[in-house]
Amino acid sequence: MNFCSDNVSGVSPEIMEAVVAANEGAAMPYGDDEYTQRLSTQLQELFETDLIVFPVATGSAANALALSVMTPPFGAIYCHSQSHINVDECGAPEFYTGGAKLVTLPGADGKIYAADLANVLNKAGAGVVHHVQPAAVSLTQATEAGCVYKPEEISQIAEIARTHNLGLQMDGARFANAVASLGCSPADITWRVGVDVLSFGATKNGAIAAEAVIFFNQELAKTFGYRRKRSGHLFSKMRFLSAQLKAYIKDNLWLKNAAHANKLAQKLAQNLAALPGARLCHPVEANEIFIELPESVIQGLLADGFRFYPWEEESKSTVRLVTAFNTKQEDVSAFIEAAQKYCEKAKEGVYVS
Amino acid sequence: MNFCSDNVSGVSPEIMEAVVAANEGAAMPYGDDEYTQRLSTQLQELFETDLIVFPVATGSAANALALSVMTPPFGAIYCHSQSHINVDECGAPEFYTGGAKLVTLPGADGKIYAADLANVLNKAGAGVVHHVQPAAVSLTQATEAGCVYKPEEISQIAEIARTHNLGLQMDGARFANAVASLGCSPADITWRVGVDVLSFGATKNGAIAAEAVIFFNQELAKTFGYRRKRSGHLFSKMRFLSAQLKAYIKDNLWLKNAAHANKLAQKLAQNLAALPGARLCHPVEANEIFIELPESVIQGLLADGFRFYPWEEESKSTVRLVTAFNTKQEDVSAFIEAAQKYCEKAKEGVYVS
Amino acid sequence: MNFCSDNVSGVSPEIMEAVVAANEGAAMPYGDDEYTQRLSTQLQELFETDLIVFPVATGSAANALALSVMTPPFGAIYCHSQSHINVDECGAPEFYTGGAKLVTLPGADGKIYAADLANVLNKAGAGVVHHVQPAAVSLTQATEAGCVYKPEEISQIAEIARTHNLGLQMDGARFANAVASLGCSPADITWRVGVDVLSFGATKNGAIAAEAVIFFNQELAKTFGYRRKRSGHLFSKMRFLSAQLKAYIKDNLWLKNAAHANKLAQKLAQNLAALPGARLCHPVEANEIFIELPESVIQGLLADGFRFYPWEEESKSTVRLVTAFNTKQEDVSAFIEAAQKYCEKAKEGVYVS
Amino acid sequence: MNFCSDNVSGVSPEIMEAVVAANEGAAMPYGDDEYTQRLSTQLQELFETDLIVFPVATGSAANALALSVMTPPFGAIYCHSQSHINVDECGAPEFYTGGAKLVTLPGADGKIYAADLANVLNKAGAGVVHHVQPAAVSLTQATEAGCVYKPEEISQIAEIARTHNLGLQMDGARFANAVASLGCSPADITWRVGVDVLSFGATKNGAIAAEAVIFFNQELAKTFGYRRKRSGHLFSKMRFLSAQLKAYIKDNLWLKNAAHANKLAQKLAQNLAALPGARLCHPVEANEIFIELPESVIQGLLADGFRFYPWEEESKSTVRLVTAFNTKQEDVSAFIEAAQKYCEKAKEGVYVS
Repeated sequence: MNFCSDNVSGVSPEIMEAVVAANEGAAMPYGDDEYTQRLSTQLQELFETDLIVFPVATGSAANALALSVMTPPFGAIYCHSQSHINVDECGAPEFYTGGAKLVTLPGADGKIYAADLANVLNKAGAGVVHHVQPAAVSLTQATEAGCVYKPEEISQIAEIARTHNLGLQMDGARFANAVASLGCSPADITWRVGVDVLSFGATKNGAIAAEAVIFFNQELAKTFGYRRKRSGHLFSKMRFLSAQLKAYIKDNLWLKNAAHANKLAQKLAQNLAALPGARLCHPVEANEIFIELPESVIQGLLADGFRFYPWEEESKSTVRLVTAFNTKQEDVSAFIEAAQKYCEKAKEGVYVS
Repeated sequence: MNFCSDNVSGVSPEIMEAVVAANEGAAMPYGDDEYTQRLSTQLQELFETDLIVFPVATGSAANALALSVMTPPFGAIYCHSQSHINVDECGAPEFYTGGAKLVTLPGADGKIYAADLANVLNKAGAGVVHHVQPAAVSLTQATEAGCVYKPEEISQIAEIARTHNLGLQMDGARFANAVASLGCSPADITWRVGVDVLSFGATKNGAIAAEAVIFFNQELAKTFGYRRKRSGHLFSKMRFLSAQLKAYIKDNLWLKNAAHANKLAQKLAQNLAALPGARLCHPVEANEIFIELPESVIQGLLADGFRFYPWEEESKSTVRLVTAFNTKQEDVSAFIEAAQKYCEKAKEGVYVS
Repeated sequence: MNFCSDNVSGVSPEIMEAVVAANEGAAMPYGDDEYTQRLSTQLQELFETDLIVFPVATGSAANALALSVMTPPFGAIYCHSQSHINVDECGAPEFYTGGAKLVTLPGADGKIYAADLANVLNKAGAGVVHHVQPAAVSLTQATEAGCVYKPEEISQIAEIARTHNLGLQMDGARFANAVASLGCSPADITWRVGVDVLSFGATKNGAIAAEAVIFFNQELAKTFGYRRKRSGHLFSKMRFLSAQLKAYIKDNLWLKNAAHANKLAQKLAQNLAALPGARLCHPVEANEIFIELPESVIQGLLADGFRFYPWEEESKSTVRLVTAFNTKQEDVSAFIEAAQKYCEKAKEGVYVS
Repeated sequence: MNFCSDNVSGVSPEIMEAVVAANEGAAMPYGDDEYTQRLSTQLQELFETDLIVFPVATGSAANALALSVMTPPFGAIYCHSQSHINVDECGAPEFYTGGAKLVTLPGADGKIYAADLANVLNKAGAGVVHHVQPAAVSLTQATEAGCVYKPEEISQIAEIARTHNLGLQMDGARFANAVASLGCSPADITWRVGVDVLSFGATKNGAIAAEAVIFFNQELAKTFGYRRKRSGHLFSKMRFLSAQLKAYIKDNLWLKNAAHANKLAQKLAQNLAALPGARLCHPVEANEIFIELPESVIQGLLADGFRFYPWEEESKSTVRLVTAFNTKQEDVSAFIEAAQKYCEKAKEGVYVS
C-alpha cells in the first residue's frame, strides 16, 4: 500500500492496450505516423482550439523544452520557490535555456500571485543590460502543494505577463487532477486565460511515459522541433508515445483517472484531518495530501507497511500522501483505520518509539 | 514492404510482453525498482565484467550524455564525418557538452582508422589554449555504412586514444548487428579492446524506446546521473525501460533479432548485386545495404510500393535498404523479384520514365 | 562632483604611466611577456604564498571564470542575494558554468553567515540526482553594502565549505578597500582562512580595466586558461594588462588608493549621519555609504549638481555615495556643507519640492 | 626584429595619447560617456551609413558575440576551415552560441567561394529537425592566408547567404589591411555588398586592446548588449576603449598604419620570392607572407635572431612573416639581406645544420 507518489503506480489498462495495439505493421518514424497525426486532431477537439503538439516522454523534458523557446540565455523565469522546475529537475530549465535564471516567488499553497509577480517585475530592470531580462512565467497546475489555480487567478497572472511581454508556461504534470477538481473545460484554465504552452502530463495519471507539449501560441513552436531532437527527446518509434496520449484522452480516460485519485484523496484527507493532533497543511484540491500527524501515528503506519514520504519542508511530523488512478478504496480505508488505531494508542500512551 | 529503416519496425513480441508484465503492482520510481536492479546484474553477465548501466530512451540521448562526461566544453570529439552524432542529431553532442567541437575524420565504410586519428591528434595542439582540446573518440558499431569494426581495429584506435588520454565511446545503435556479424562476445569489441562507454541500442532491434548506456570505465559514470536527470532523461516509471532491456537480452533475443536482420540483408545484397548495373557501395556486414541501381529499377520498385530512401551522399542512383528483426523472408524475395523484373525490362528498353 | 560609483573615476597616474612605459619594443603575445611573468612573482610576495594568476579585464569575467572551474553545469553556487554575481552580471555565472544555479542567502550588511550556509547545505540534497549539487560559495569582500568580512567570519564559512566539499571564491572588486579597512595582510583574508580563488580587483581602485584571478588552490586552475581563451578574455597584448596590475601593487599603491577612498567615506558618513533625519543603513567600513536622508536634502543636493544614485532597495529616500582613489577632500567638504545647508532649510520649512 | 605577428607590436603613439587624454575628470560608466557616443557618429561617417557599434576588447569576443546574435544553439556557421573562429579561439563561437556547429569549407588563399557555399547549403537539410540549421556565414577579411576578398566575391557570397536566410558576419581583425590593399571605401566591402555585422579590428593595427562590433543590420543588434554584459565584455570605464577606437579612425590613422604594414610586406615578399628555392604560398595582399624557404636559410635567420613562426600547415619549410604598423624599413632590409646571405651560403654548400 504505497502512497509515496503517483509515479509508483503502473499503467492504465486502456493505455497499455493501446500500446500493444500500436505494434501493428510498419510506421514511419519520428512522428510521421498516423497515431501522431490523429493525436493532434483529438487534442484540438479536447482543447476546443487550434494548437500544435509535441509528444515527449518526461515532464522535465516537457517543461524545460517549453521554457527554452520563450527564454533567451539572459532571461529570467518567474516561478514558485517550491516548483518542480526550481527544486526537482536538477537545473533542467537552466540547461535547456543556456543559463537563464529562475527567479522564485513565495506564495501560499504552492501558488504564485499576480500582485507579487507585478511587484517583482516592476523592480526587475527590464531593458537594463546589467540584469537578466524577464522572459517567462511558469505555473504549476495542480501545484506542488496539491492545490489548484482558479481560472481567474491564472488570468490575473497572464495579464501581468502580457503587460511585461512574458511567455506563460504551465507545468501540468497533474493537469488532469486540476481539471477534474475544477470541473471546467481544459480550455478554461489554459488558452482562454492566457496560457501560451502547456505540459500536458499523462505519466503520473496512467501512462508509461508520455507528456504532450501543447502550444496554443503557435508562434512559439517554431524552433521546438529542433530543440526536441537536439536534446534526444524525439522518439524514432513515436507511434508508441502518441498511442499512449491518444488512449489517455479517449473517452475521457484522463479525467476518470484523475477524478478517482482526487476522490480518494478527499476521503483520506477528511478522515485523517478529523484525528486528534492532525492538521492539513493545505486544502486538498487534487490528489496530494500534506498533513501533520502525531509522530507515533506516523511510526505506527510505517511499521504496518504503509509507504509514504515525510515532508519536512512543511513542518516537522508532516507527511505527504499521494493517491493515483489505481489507488484502491480498500487501501485508503486500511490506511485510515490504521491511523485511527495509532491515534487511539497514542491517547492511551501505549506507543513507545 | 518498408525498407526505409529499422526504426519503422514495431516491437519484438517478447519485449512487448515484458512491458505488459512489468505493469504489476507498485514500484518505486527513478530506477529504485527490481527491474532496473536486475538489469544491471544481467548485463554484467552478458558483458563478463563489472559495469554501471543507465537506461535511457533514445540513441541521441545515450550518445550525447555519454560524451558529455568525458568532454569539457572546450573539448574536441573525434568521429567519422558521416557519424550519426555529427550528421543526424541536430547538434546534440554540442548541446550536452556545453559547446565542444566535433572533429571529423574521413574513412572508408564509415570507419575511422587509427593512423588517421593519430595524424590528426599529433597536430591538434594539446595543451595550447588557442585550440579545443582532444577529449574523446566516438566509434559507430556497426557503422553508418553498414560495416563492422573488427576487434583489432578498435584496439588500435583505443591505443591511440589512451596515448592521448582520450575517452573512447561507442555508438552501438546497431551493436547487436555487429556482434551477430562478428560472432564474438560483446566483451570482445568493447571493454576488452579499450571501449570506456557503450550506447547499447535496443530500439532499432525490437524495443519500443530503450538504450542502455554502459560504463566499463566506472570512474566516468560519476556525474552521469545528474546529467541524465537534468536533461529530462530520467524516467519516473523506469521499470518499463528496464523491462524492455531485460527482455532484450534474455535468451539472446537481441542476437537472434540481429542475426535475422543480417541474414536477410545478405540475401538481399547478394541477389541485388548480381543484377546488371548494380553495385554495392560497401560490404554488407550488418543490416544495411547501400547499392547503386539503374534509375529505372529504382523507379519501378517505388511504383510497386516498396519503400526505401535514396542515398545521394554515396552516389547518384544509390539507395539504402534496411532490414529489421521482423523483416519477412517473403518481402525480401518479393523485392528481389521485382528488381529482377525491372532489370529485365530495362534490358528490353521497355521502361519509360 | 560625482559620487555615483568608483568606476566613474579615471586612472591612477602611476598606472597610466606604467601602461605608457610598457609600450616599448616588441613583446610576445598572450602572456608570454616579461610583464606578466613578473606580475606572478610580485603577487606571490604580496600574498606570501605560491599562487597562479590570470589577468583579465573585467570583474564579471574574473568572477564567472573563477566560478566555472569549480562548478559543474548541474552545480549550485551559494551567494548573498544582493551579490554582484546574482544581481548585476546579467547571468554571467550561469553562462560560464553552463547553467548552474545561484542559491541566494539573506544576511545583514551584504554578508552571508556560516550558520545560514550550513542550514541551507544540510537540506540541499547532496548526492540526490533531482537537485542541483552544492559546488561553490562566493563571498564579496568588501560587500555590496560597503561592509567588510572579518577573517574569522570567512574562516567559519570556509569551514562549512570544506565540510561539504565546496570551492570558496571571493569577489574582490573592492578587495583593496577591505584590506585597508582591516589593516591586515591580504593573506589573512584569503588563503589563510580558506579562500581558493580571488578576483583581485583593480579597476574600481585606479586601473583602466584590470583584474587578477588568483588561484591559491592551484589544482582548480587547470582548465582556466582554456576557459579564458574560449570566452575571449585572453588579451593578445597582455603586457598592457599586466603592467596595470604590476603598477597597482607596486609600492602599495593599491592600499594607498583604497585608504584614501575609505578615509573620505568615513568623513562623509560621520558628518552626514549627524544630520537630523539622517540614518546610516550599514556600518561604513569601506568606500560606500548607504544613507537615508530627508527627501528635500536629496533633491537639494541633486539640484546643486552633486551626482549619486538613489538606492531604493535599502529603503525609500536612501542614497548611495561612493568615494574613490581620487575623490577630493574639498568635494567631500562641499557635499557635507550642502547637505547641512539643506537640512537647515528643511528645519525652517523653506524647501518646497 | 620580430615578425611573429602583428600582435607583438606595441601601441600607435596617437592611440596611446588618446588614452592618456581620456583620463580627464569623471565619466559615467558602461558607455554612457562622451567618447563612446562620439565614436558612434564618427563610425557612421566613416562607413557612410547608419550603424550601431559596440566596443569590446578582443577579436575573439567580437566574433563570438556577433555570431551569437544570428545563430541559434542548433545552428550552423559556415566558415573557412582555417578561419580563426574555427582554429584559434578554443571554441568561442560554440560557447557563445550555446553549441552551434562550425561547418568548414576549403578554399584557396583562405577564402570561401560562393559556389562551394551554395553546394553545401543545398545539401544542408534546412527545415529537417535531424540536422543543425544553416544560420550564418563568417568571412575573414583579410584572410588567414594574407589575401583579400574583392567586393564582388563578398557580394556573391552574400547573395547565397540571403537566399538561404543566413546572417553574414565579417571577421575584420585585419580589416584595415584589406581596405588599404583594395583602396576602396570601407562601405564597399561591408554593407554595400551585404555584410550584416563587422568585427572592426584595431588591436593588431595599433590599439592596446580594442575592436568595434559594427551592426549594419541593426535588427540583429537587439540582444547584443545583454550578451556582451553577460560574457563580461562590457567595460565599466568604457571611455578608454572608445578613446582607442576614436583615435584609430581619426585622420585615417587606421589606413596609414595598415598601408605601412602592407607596403613592407610587399617589399619583403618581392625580395624573398626572388631567392632561389623560395616560393610564396599565397599572393601577398595584406601584411602576412607565407613562404617556403630553404631549410638552411630558415635556420640561419633564426640563428641571427630574427623571430617568426614556422607554418607547417602550408607545407614543410614554410614560414609566416607578419609586418605591423610600426615595422621598421631597416628591419625589413636586414631580413632580406640576411636571407640573401644564407641563400648564397646554401649555394656554396657552406651551411651545415
